[in-house]
Amino acid sequence: MSNLSKIDELSVNSIRFLGMDQINKAKSGHPGIVLGAAPIMHTLFTRHLNVDPNDETWFNRDRFILSAGHGSAMLYATLHLAGFNVKIDDLKNFRQFESKTPGHPEVFWTSGVEASTGPLGQGIAMACGMALTEKFLEGKFNKPNNRIINHYTYVLCGDGCLQEGIAQEAMSLAGTLRLDKLIILYDSNDIQLDGEVKGCNTENVKMKMEAMGFSYFRVDDGNDVDAISNAIEEAKQSDLPSIIEIKTQIGYGSPLAGDCSVHGAPLGPDNTQELRNALEWKYAEFEVPEEVYQFYNRRVAEKGDMVNTKWNKALSDYQDEFPDEYLELDKFINNDFSFDLEALPKYEVGFEESTRKVSSYCTAIISSLVPNYIGGCADVAKSTLVRGANGNFDDENTTGRNILFGIREHAMGAMVNGMVLHGMSAFCGCFLAFADYMKDDIRMAALMGIPSLFVYSHDSIAVGEDGPTHEPIEQLTMLRSIPNTLVFRPCDPNEMVYAFKLAYDTKNKPSVIISTRQKVRTLAGTSYEGAKHGGYIVRKENGKLDGVIIASGSEVSLAVDVAEKLSEQGREVRVVSMISTNLFDLQTPEYKESIIPSGVKNMAIEMAHPMPWYKYSRNVYGIETFGLSAPASKVMSHFGFTVDKVLEYYNNIK
Amino acid sequence: MSNLSKIDELSVNSIRFLGMDQINKAKSGHPGIVLGAAPIMHTLFTRHLNVDPNDETWFNRDRFILSAGHGSAMLYATLHLAGFNVKIDDLKNFRQFESKTPGHPEVFWTSGVEASTGPLGQGIAMACGMALTEKFLEGKFNKPNNRIINHYTYVLCGDGCLQEGIAQEAMSLAGTLRLDKLIILYDSNDIQLDGEVKGCNTENVKMKMEAMGFSYFRVDDGNDVDAISNAIEEAKQSDLPSIIEIKTQIGYGSPLAGDCSVHGAPLGPDNTQELRNALEWKYAEFEVPEEVYQFYNRRVAEKGDMVNTKWNKALSDYQDEFPDEYLELDKFINNDFSFDLEALPKYEVGFEESTRKVSSYCTAIISSLVPNYIGGCADVAKSTLVRGANGNFDDENTTGRNILFGIREHAMGAMVNGMVLHGMSAFCGCFLAFADYMKDDIRMAALMGIPSLFVYSHDSIAVGEDGPTHEPIEQLTMLRSIPNTLVFRPCDPNEMVYAFKLAYDTKNKPSVIISTRQKVRTLAGTSYEGAKHGGYIVRKENGKLDGVIIASGSEVSLAVDVAEKLSEQGREVRVVSMISTNLFDLQTPEYKESIIPSGVKNMAIEMAHPMPWYKYSRNVYGIETFGLSAPASKVMSHFGFTVDKVLEYYNNIK
Repeated sequence: MSNLSKIDELSVNSIRFLGMDQINKAKSGHPGIVLGAAPIMHTLFTRHLNVDPNDETWFNRDRFILSAGHGSAMLYATLHLAGFNVKIDDLKNFRQFESKTPGHPEVFWTSGVEASTGPLGQGIAMACGMALTEKFLEGKFNKPNNRIINHYTYVLCGDGCLQEGIAQEAMSLAGTLRLDKLIILYDSNDIQLDGEVKGCNTENVKMKMEAMGFSYFRVDDGNDVDAISNAIEEAKQSDLPSIIEIKTQIGYGSPLAGDCSVHGAPLGPDNTQELRNALEWKYAEFEVPEEVYQFYNRRVAEKGDMVNTKWNKALSDYQDEFPDEYLELDKFINNDFSFDLEALPKYEVGFEESTRKVSSYCTAIISSLVPNYIGGCADVAKSTLVRGANGNFDDENTTGRNILFGIREHAMGAMVNGMVLHGMSAFCGCFLAFADYMKDDIRMAALMGIPSLFVYSHDSIAVGEDGPTHEPIEQLTMLRSIPNTLVFRPCDPNEMVYAFKLAYDTKNKPSVIISTRQKVRTLAGTSYEGAKHGGYIVRKENGKLDGVIIASGSEVSLAVDVAEKLSEQGREVRVVSMISTNLFDLQTPEYKESIIPSGVKNMAIEMAHPMPWYKYSRNVYGIETFGLSAPASKVMSHFGFTVDKVLEYYNNIK
Repeated sequence: MSNLSKIDELSVNSIRFLGMDQINKAKSGHPGIVLGAAPIMHTLFTRHLNVDPNDETWFNRDRFILSAGHGSAMLYATLHLAGFNVKIDDLKNFRQFESKTPGHPEVFWTSGVEASTGPLGQGIAMACGMALTEKFLEGKFNKPNNRIINHYTYVLCGDGCLQEGIAQEAMSLAGTLRLDKLIILYDSNDIQLDGEVKGCNTENVKMKMEAMGFSYFRVDDGNDVDAISNAIEEAKQSDLPSIIEIKTQIGYGSPLAGDCSVHGAPLGPDNTQELRNALEWKYAEFEVPEEVYQFYNRRVAEKGDMVNTKWNKALSDYQDEFPDEYLELDKFINNDFSFDLEALPKYEVGFEESTRKVSSYCTAIISSLVPNYIGGCADVAKSTLVRGANGNFDDENTTGRNILFGIREHAMGAMVNGMVLHGMSAFCGCFLAFADYMKDDIRMAALMGIPSLFVYSHDSIAVGEDGPTHEPIEQLTMLRSIPNTLVFRPCDPNEMVYAFKLAYDTKNKPSVIISTRQKVRTLAGTSYEGAKHGGYIVRKENGKLDGVIIASGSEVSLAVDVAEKLSEQGREVRVVSMISTNLFDLQTPEYKESIIPSGVKNMAIEMAHPMPWYKYSRNVYGIETFGLSAPASKVMSHFGFTVDKVLEYYNNIK
């Protein structure tokens, strides 16, 4: 580190030792990346990143995502130096109960953290979503004389993130869309957990990245902060997204340097002492040289305040010169949009339509009322009908709100999360069966508590001819069991409308809306008030209650038909539409009892795996095998989803 | 098509029209790829592919995977011509109930189909697994004078497959491992469902593929069968995996040629008539010129028979010259291996060990007894301890049975499926939380009915410090709800052993084995006989039964501790270890009643989402939120997984 200025060296080592101290104290964590990549963090934060630690949510800040989330100790150390609300005591509580410094970064929990990361690749894809948002906002609001939106999205990753398909998908799209404000800092140390990178990856990184539409830069010495800084400067000038491969050494300075054993286990006292000797570090545990604080204060906090102030002046000029645009920009900044239920369609009883079609109407109307409603599909919009407004987003139409994600489901979901983190109302869609490719995206949205919207069509065996690969069976179970998530499976066109309204009005968790391929008829009993409760009575018994049939989606009509038939036989059955088990579970015990009274026989029907329904009924009429390829009506009758078969089942339950 | 010989032209058009006829008759299917890629199928089958329609499972056959599974009509047409057991009547029943010609190809259902495909990208990854197997077998069995294993794996894909992260992951690994017998035929038509490819993908394919370690070839005219054939010939000579980009026109010859609308909807009578005119096709629906049958008979069936016969002669020579190796090869060919339970470890009551460690012992022992036991990990073998034997598989150690998959979970699972389809006993592992990245792989194994083994460690919130991204909550629900799948969550070291034995002995579905990071103690009551039933009594009540506690995994010890405490208070509680809900569900009602008697109070405990348990108990003690970052014991006590808290809960149930 001879070519470093004194203050750079002190600063880099402050990050390193704050990292080691956290990990050693917690007896848990990942030292390798901290020691190797600290110079990257230092360079980025003190020479490039525009953030204001005293105004964390400043809209035009640069975003920094630590995609290699296991490097959390390094991030917390840097955020601490930078003046974010991460105190030394927080660092001392690394990975402890309710501390501000959990094992992997958690957004909205720790000051300065822009996204929750940990599952590899997710951070890169979210960063692509943020960079897309920035480009969209640039196109929408910037004026030749006032580039009010002008910030970068930086992401730090290692080999792990880059090997993940989700990252490759997202980067492929970022290259295509020329997301030039995206800068990936690739901590390239030739080592991963199970050994050398070359054991499982011998790609030519430069060639691959350039083939994917990226500018590629390389820094040979990962301790050379000037070289890193110059590369970042070049990347900023590029009109393509950039990746900077920075050759570092995992566990730099420690006796385990260059060995995969330093990846994920604390150094411990002896190795730490050797590290101290090697790097000539003479400060106490958790001690930071005062000049480092001063340097960071000047380079991050003071600079950030200055840049923020200047931007606010520019915003004020913008307001003067472009008052209408300003009003809209202000609403974008605060995500201050809403719409009334009345703005959406209302369907007459008996009207038949596929709910995918209704979902497309809702999306179009909401798009017209909510200018930051943006999204797209994984190349099946022709089938799902999930499309954003204003044409396709691309390098020439940056205000287009339809994203052609390509057949990249996994990246799609994470990019939507990134867009939502950047303040957009973002959605995406594909076939329900392929929610399988996106499970972790939805989980991450739920974990972060953000209102990403996932719209899935072709919701059951009624897909028919395309057969079992395309017929969801267990997907509803998978989705409903994700904590902090609302899954809606509407039963008729009006419930589809309610689902869109309820999803939009939910701000602290993701929603999943599931639509049918086939037509369903509009029922008399569906209501917004009911849907709000997740489960409610859509057909009330006309006399003494004989039993309750609980259903969701297209099976609700079937349940109503069964109930009508039973009524002809003098038995009165109630039908409950369970549009969202997740919402129903949030209701009071009294409400639940009023809908599904105990002591009355009941059953649940769904053309899907029965698992979610045993909570509500002992008698579940579902499907525990895969579907099959045949015309939809044949498949449905084969699996017994006919009035007669359900009636027979009902007659046999107690 | 002027440069085509008469017979090539007739043949290609036979595939095209058989495809159109199937799709038109079914009123469902994907004509675009059939019309565009028929020459590729024709060239491959009549000039290169070594298969024997009269001996479909001939071991040394070339494998062909249609990764673009929506092109099923094209595949069935070709298989029909080639003499596989796909008759004209089967084609007439395309996409009908129980026909041999379902909407997407289904292995073990239709003669000549090597893998079920449909979810895009899966086919490429499975093909990579097959090519890896071929290379392994070559290394293991081939002799300088007798290359008894020597076949290619061909895969046909379109833009959709290549955009998928799973394919990119698999290809990146294929390039690294130099799987030179892998040849990807890329049907490159510049069109995908929602429009032009360039709208979402502008990659330089050649450059990217070469960067990833592939030989790249290009055919400019997708109707030029000679050019296609030459490219395949060159690819066969390459010592790298190959991709041949073949420029085709989607919907070739039809009025919709080149338009995305031809992708997924039948042409219908008018457009079909125009197609007939354009291609000068004068045969009736489902009629094939006799000379085409003759040509295919000569080029596929007769050649296949000859090549097969020649190979059997070589095998006989091999047997004479290398009798020992022959015996083992014969066992490989028939996957004829087994081991006794007694070969695996047996643990003393009270012995404490993490089940991940036990899983590593089992894997090592089985590997020593079963020479086709092969697998690896997504770069977390240091933590999961899931490793194959004989060193890392690579270009220089092709008999290594440990696959360094890299951080590519999605491709890993599908590659394991490909290896199993090729007759290996293959397994893979990562953290349970990241089963999310592999959901569709497991589903595909289940759908195909193949015994892939997925081993996941770090099974609960007991992960501790790494926090909520790494702590599975809803993953057990996701896995247990996949049809035709066995999920095992063993409660102690011995049950882990039983899980490995039961998984190995199950040949018609995948197994998922889940291990703990932390130590668990060996219980007195666990037994193989019990485990075989999925759920059984591990602690019997010593008197009148007060209640039943059902648990799985590490929570079984906790349940036993609670039961002991209740016993001290004079209440006798039975503890059931539910090692596999899937196996338990297969038992007789009488057996189930004998384990969990109705009319007796019961509860279920699991440090995970409660959804799977309501089927067995009204009282489920689980976790419906995400986990958190803190030392494991703190996390567990925070979520109430202590004797006192469970006891309190038990006391309050009825």
